[in-house]
Amino acid sequence: MKMINLDHISSKPLLPEIKKAIIAAIEKNYHNPSSQHKSGEEAAEALQRARGAVAALLNCKTPQEVVFTSGGTESVNHALKGAAMANEDKGRHIITSNIEHNAVIRSLRRLKSAGFAVTSLPVDSGGRVNPKDVAEAITKDTILVSIMHSNNETGTIQPIEEIGKITREKKVIFHCDAVDSVGVAPIDVQKLGVDLLSFASNTFYGPAGVGGLYIRRGTRIFPLLDGGVQENNKRAGTENLVGIIGCGKAAELALRDMDKRLKHLRTLKNKLLTELPHWIDEYIINTHPEFSLPNLVSISIKYIEGESVMLMLDDENIAVSTRSACATGSLRASHVLMSLGLSHADAQGTLVISFGIDNTEEDIDTFFKALKKVVNTLRDISPLYRKEPNSQNMHRSPVDGR
Amino acid sequence: MKMINLDHISSKPLLPEIKKAIIAAIEKNYHNPSSQHKSGEEAAEALQRARGAVAALLNCKTPQEVVFTSGGTESVNHALKGAAMANEDKGRHIITSNIEHNAVIRSLRRLKSAGFAVTSLPVDSGGRVNPKDVAEAITKDTILVSIMHSNNETGTIQPIEEIGKITREKKVIFHCDAVDSVGVAPIDVQKLGVDLLSFASNTFYGPAGVGGLYIRRGTRIFPLLDGGVQENNKRAGTENLVGIIGCGKAAELALRDMDKRLKHLRTLKNKLLTELPHWIDEYIINTHPEFSLPNLVSISIKYIEGESVMLMLDDENIAVSTRSACATGSLRASHVLMSLGLSHADAQGTLVISFGIDNTEEDIDTFFKALKKVVNTLRDISPLYRKEPNSQNMHRSPVDGR
Repeated sequence: MKMINLDHISSKPLLPEIKKAIIAAIEKNYHNPSSQHKSGEEAAEALQRARGAVAALLNCKTPQEVVFTSGGTESVNHALKGAAMANEDKGRHIITSNIEHNAVIRSLRRLKSAGFAVTSLPVDSGGRVNPKDVAEAITKDTILVSIMHSNNETGTIQPIEEIGKITREKKVIFHCDAVDSVGVAPIDVQKLGVDLLSFASNTFYGPAGVGGLYIRRGTRIFPLLDGGVQENNKRAGTENLVGIIGCGKAAELALRDMDKRLKHLRTLKNKLLTELPHWIDEYIINTHPEFSLPNLVSISIKYIEGESVMLMLDDENIAVSTRSACATGSLRASHVLMSLGLSHADAQGTLVISFGIDNTEEDIDTFFKALKKVVNTLRDISPLYRKEPNSQNMHRSPVDGR
Repeated sequence: MKMINLDHISSKPLLPEIKKAIIAAIEKNYHNPSSQHKSGEEAAEALQRARGAVAALLNCKTPQEVVFTSGGTESVNHALKGAAMANEDKGRHIITSNIEHNAVIRSLRRLKSAGFAVTSLPVDSGGRVNPKDVAEAITKDTILVSIMHSNNETGTIQPIEEIGKITREKKVIFHCDAVDSVGVAPIDVQKLGVDLLSFASNTFYGPAGVGGLYIRRGTRIFPLLDGGVQENNKRAGTENLVGIIGCGKAAELALRDMDKRLKHLRTLKNKLLTELPHWIDEYIINTHPEFSLPNLVSISIKYIEGESVMLMLDDENIAVSTRSACATGSLRASHVLMSLGLSHADAQGTLVISFGIDNTEEDIDTFFKALKKVVNTLRDISPLYRKEPNSQNMHRSPVDGR
């Protein structure tokens, strides 16, 4: 039976056109782009074409501002560790938020143990950082601000443009982890005013294990991978050219089809949010109603465990997730949901539903039916749940006063 | 016209079986190996199969000692920076050699500027480190020794087993950059006595941009990429699963076909070394006659520029290289050849000929003919070359007294 994938945040299928481009690149047996003979030149050209496609998607000033990496995590590590180390003569203070991805949190933890000071800002009940807090946190010792574009667990989008104005004025380097946004929502590095921006190819239907870092020309940053002269001396190592070609193709399609995709995803998201109250009650929507990705909804269902829901939906051939796939195996409650002010019990009842352009409205209908069944089954055996015949539908969005 | 690839050190073609495995993995549309639902489990199993194949190739005690990375450069950066940072409470002294790859040299340069002290050992005229020098260089402050298995420009193999005995006795972590050896020559991490060993999939006909690090159980090392819990918490980031599956297949074939491949490559190398004097004179063989890879020969041809030879051979559809592809664009003479005692002029006349299992003896014959023509043309216009009608064939190997 076909699996309905409502866990696109963990994995998106390669689109047929991208698959075709990757297989063609494999068949072509490209030589090493750094070799100086004819076969090397062909490879170097393919590499530059992919770089151009990504630069166009992000609205970079030149393709050389794009450095390819092995994915979002490498990009984030490169941005944070590279910028911190290259600018420590100016100061050792870094500002971030409480809801970042573990790639940011753990990279900053590493920098902390190397002597950097880190200020981590709270978010409001809607899950957003207040730009004023950033402005107030900046000291003469601050060299770097890192705030994510959209959150991988809630889909909530941060006020990056406003923060970018502040960091520019204060001449502090601004890194934005846009791993879950690039290729899904329009991202323009000029408009956002960021100096460094991380992205991953699999977010926009390209291959996993490929990503990149936008480095605004003039930004002081060290490589994370030292060695050869690849990537304009910014990232050493023989390139994953096949993957990069796939990433370039994915970027080209994301730019071309952005409006069409947004429309489709918003239809699905709207359907989910509008019709969900007809199927289950007593849940919290953790996704911001206005500032959020078109492809992700986080709901905390009261009195039950998200993990049990996920496993039972899996038996119905529906894939959803409970939290970041990168945090699998961790038993602690999500730091993102706790930052929103959720109770521990509510956080444990969280499901992340993430759509792709391959999903249909029928998929959502199938999901609703299965979800209702699963929620009823689990609540029937939940010691926390007391059924009251005429209970109101209690769903609330995080901005209406939680 | 078909290109004859004698530049396998820069790029090897994917073998048909490996190509097939990669394309099958692409078609399968694996989910994220970290996801907890059914589709995630299939991906996790494929990942573990690949890990098992690499562990078998290296003779690891458990597959968990293999951590997949984005290639040799990441593995080396991980090994050096990760081990140095994790052990700096014990000491801050590192030992290496003068002929390492730029990934090692530049990673250590980065560590130097972070306060570590680095001792770099010379090599003898044959291009080998003396294990006694390692023993003598170790102080109570030494935490790490990094010596490459084979050199990427000369193919010369180092006395790793002897060095491994010393580092074990002195309880110092031993990293071996085996990027050009794993899958080409037999590598047994137990026999070598290394704690960390870097490798790259494209060395043994797997995809570029995939590699790994062997980490002996119990070795203290930090991740280079901080973030999610992938790779047993040792290397964060969504896996390049398609590439890793290709790497696993390549490891499986390398182990299965090792003897057959060695025999074929040795035949080609022997032919090159035995017959070369019939075609050109006045050259130096930089590759060690006894301790060297079966697939690489470095020759320095007197009175001419290696780069001109390479470009003219390219016109004859023969690809060779002059030095590491990773150093393309650098105008400085190779530090490896200078360490061997070559003059600047001789170093500039260097060609690296590297075979693959797809090469034939006819390829070598074609190369000889083209090389003779090119060398004669270039020497005719070289101001350094004085033709003496009865000049002896002056080729010398680096061990006979240079």
